Amino acid sequence: MLAANTSILSQDESMARILITSGPTRQYLDPVRYLTNASSGRMGAALATAAIALGHEVTIISGPVAVTYPSAATLVPVISTEDMLAASQEHFATADGVIGAAAPCDYRPRRVEDHKIAKTGESLSLQLEETPDVIATLGGIKSPQQWVVGFALETDDARFKAITKLEKKRCDFIVLNGPAAIDAEATSVEILDKTGTVLAEITGSKAKVAEGILAEIQSRLIGE
Amino acid sequence: MLAANTSILSQDESMARILITSGPTRQYLDPVRYLTNASSGRMGAALATAAIALGHEVTIISGPVAVTYPSAATLVPVISTEDMLAASQEHFATADGVIGAAAPCDYRPRRVEDHKIAKTGESLSLQLEETPDVIATLGGIKSPQQWVVGFALETDDARFKAITKLEKKRCDFIVLNGPAAIDAEATSVEILDKTGTVLAEITGSKAKVAEGILAEIQSRLIGE
Repeated sequence: MLAANTSILSQDESMARILITSGPTRQYLDPVRYLTNASSGRMGAALATAAIALGHEVTIISGPVAVTYPSAATLVPVISTEDMLAASQEHFATADGVIGAAAPCDYRPRRVEDHKIAKTGESLSLQLEETPDVIATLGGIKSPQQWVVGFALETDDARFKAITKLEKKRCDFIVLNGPAAIDAEATSVEILDKTGTVLAEITGSKAKVAEGILAEIQSRLIGE
Repeated sequence: MLAANTSILSQDESMARILITSGPTRQYLDPVRYLTNASSGRMGAALATAAIALGHEVTIISGPVAVTYPSAATLVPVISTEDMLAASQEHFATADGVIGAAAPCDYRPRRVEDHKIAKTGESLSLQLEETPDVIATLGGIKSPQQWVVGFALETDDARFKAITKLEKKRCDFIVLNGPAAIDAEATSVEILDKTGTVLAEITGSKAKVAEGILAEIQSRLIGE
């Protein structure tokens, strides 16, 4: 009995509840047009598969994508960045950590029209404001036991900007990649920690990169 | 020999070369963010299937979609509205008619940034200008033998706006639908001709609606 109980306890202790944000979000201008990006959700799906393979419990908060997520994960579909933030805050409350693989649309029109904007032949001035930052919000409310892994997609001064984001969003790690990663099969990333140290450089399929990211999380954040 | 030739000729005469524009297009602000809409390409795929079933030769000019088009169609993938216009003009030159089922992004940023726009905490003023109208351009250059069928997606004053579009774009028919049609399995449309007459009202799956649209094109535009 004791042995059996110990075994169950040790299983429970090694099992983490991992929240993964994935895919793009949309910010509508009117009932038809929206701002977005080409995030496919493939990295989120690969991370979920890798986390499940390690025995973790996974919840995915995903914007609209065509990718198929592993059926063992709990899927929470959302449309806008505000939806993603609300769902993430709710599910982060009972999670051990979050991996922010989503590319939430970070600007929204200040005004959203009820009717489709009619073309007039004239140019249109669109006032955009920043949307709330999902990972920075979670970084700001995390308990000392919770961990946050962010992603940074940068086109120039990449490593410097990634470290700045890590600090601003209070991440434990940040995964740096380039725009070539979006909607691609393969990718190349660097995993940086709070000191700016490159923990790992991984190039390959999104599955391989996801396994590498999970290995770092497993040994340095869950296994501590 | 004479009978055989006659048969071949009559087959050629009943076979039309149909160009179909399908899916959304994207207009990028910077290397990551873009304006678009949720068009899935499903109506374009259904129209292609219906046209091929009637023995026609089909070329599809499609923006980025997850839908699978019939393999018997020639597929020309594009990203932006300018790409779609260029490909459509090229292929329309040898087509008997075009069905404009795409939802090209009709505004583009006046300025496209080379680097990802960095968030500053401040709002962003985006100047948008209209993109060229693909179907209006084809309507303007069509020969008396060619036909043009447009689509109108309207949220209010729908029939009036559809007729106005038909005239402006020099379409033979216009297919009127509502925003509920976007990225949906089923739809409900009205087919209007130049006199404003409702030729057909069709509700059902996109396959059924596509067959109904092709039946009208077959009897009134190809069969003339």
